[in-house]
Amino acid sequence: MSIDQFFGEYFPFWNKLSDSDKQHLCQSSALVHFEKEQSVHNNSGCSGLFIVKTGRLRLYMLSEEGKEITLYRLSPGEICMLSASCVLQSITFDVYVEAEIPSDCYMISGAAFADVSQRVLEVKNFALETAVQRFSDVMWIMQQIVFMSMDKRLAIFLLDEISVNGTDMVGMTHEQIARHLGTAREVVTRMLRHFSSDGWIEVTRKGVKILDKMKLRDIAY
Amino acid sequence: MSIDQFFGEYFPFWNKLSDSDKQHLCQSSALVHFEKEQSVHNNSGCSGLFIVKTGRLRLYMLSEEGKEITLYRLSPGEICMLSASCVLQSITFDVYVEAEIPSDCYMISGAAFADVSQRVLEVKNFALETAVQRFSDVMWIMQQIVFMSMDKRLAIFLLDEISVNGTDMVGMTHEQIARHLGTAREVVTRMLRHFSSDGWIEVTRKGVKILDKMKLRDIAY
Repeated sequence: MSIDQFFGEYFPFWNKLSDSDKQHLCQSSALVHFEKEQSVHNNSGCSGLFIVKTGRLRLYMLSEEGKEITLYRLSPGEICMLSASCVLQSITFDVYVEAEIPSDCYMISGAAFADVSQRVLEVKNFALETAVQRFSDVMWIMQQIVFMSMDKRLAIFLLDEISVNGTDMVGMTHEQIARHLGTAREVVTRMLRHFSSDGWIEVTRKGVKILDKMKLRDIAY
Repeated sequence: MSIDQFFGEYFPFWNKLSDSDKQHLCQSSALVHFEKEQSVHNNSGCSGLFIVKTGRLRLYMLSEEGKEITLYRLSPGEICMLSASCVLQSITFDVYVEAEIPSDCYMISGAAFADVSQRVLEVKNFALETAVQRFSDVMWIMQQIVFMSMDKRLAIFLLDEISVNGTDMVGMTHEQIARHLGTAREVVTRMLRHFSSDGWIEVTRKGVKILDKMKLRDIAY
């Protein structure tokens, strides 16, 4: 599929653009490959927009001490707008983006997209709408952090993971899970031991195997 | 000032509207008075938009157990968009709004605003842009909650309060401060005692008096 066709499929505003704007955006874009855990955007300036073609991106916050919180993931066809701070001036916070698995993404120059979005209201609208949708995802994470106990958050995390991966296995170390949740490894280990002794999960060398989804759902929701 | 003039001043899209759309919005609006701590929006359906004419609104999250977190405040001229879920379908989270001090607000019917915003792209754009601006405020709160120690958060809270009120006095009980920060009263009391013994603040019957802003700023930033 050509880049023009791909954009036509994923941008609802594509047909509103003049031929020269279409050309401008296509010429300011490139297909980029990222290895697993490679950084896509590290909060330095405007990296541009990314559309996931294959793979999966992860957006997260990072504290000065290196503590992380995963905000949300982007799957094929989804668009990373928060890395394009030059398009959305009102986004003043810092996010980090990495490829969670090997990923191919179309990268569109932030300057080119901003230029078109200033002239074509539909494009501006799309950029804002995409950002506002993620606002809801982030509020859900915030609600979990502020109001939920860690066992509830861990159960939600494990269920989300197996739903994203389509298996019963969460192939992560306790350290990695802790980093997603912004907590200490010891806390995750203790909680997993508790889940395991109840027979809901099994901790193996490859990661955490989910044995009883229903029980985890009971805690989670 | 008539409602038409007021909207003309606060809505950048006002001159793009047809006379009948202007009339439609004006007729679907009312000036509403709220007493101190009166609920403006309690998360049941679409309460509409609010523009603060005088006073101050507070937006917060509320857990099932009644725990609160203040997200941000709205001052005269600012617009509450998150209470109009019928305008922004992609906002799927729940917020609560109350008047922090006696307030007069223009309330615009969500249905009327949604109707106009579907036809006039500039209006839709304005609604989205207003929401995205608040996204940054909320991320800043989230960053504080996740990454900052409570003494830092308390120092930021006290400095914000005196800056909003234009005095050196935060006229709240420890219980009220704790509620804003989503923590226990005991934690706030202990922290204030520590600030007080260092001579940065004075705890009086009327609330917390700030004595050394510079020292608080040192902790806060």
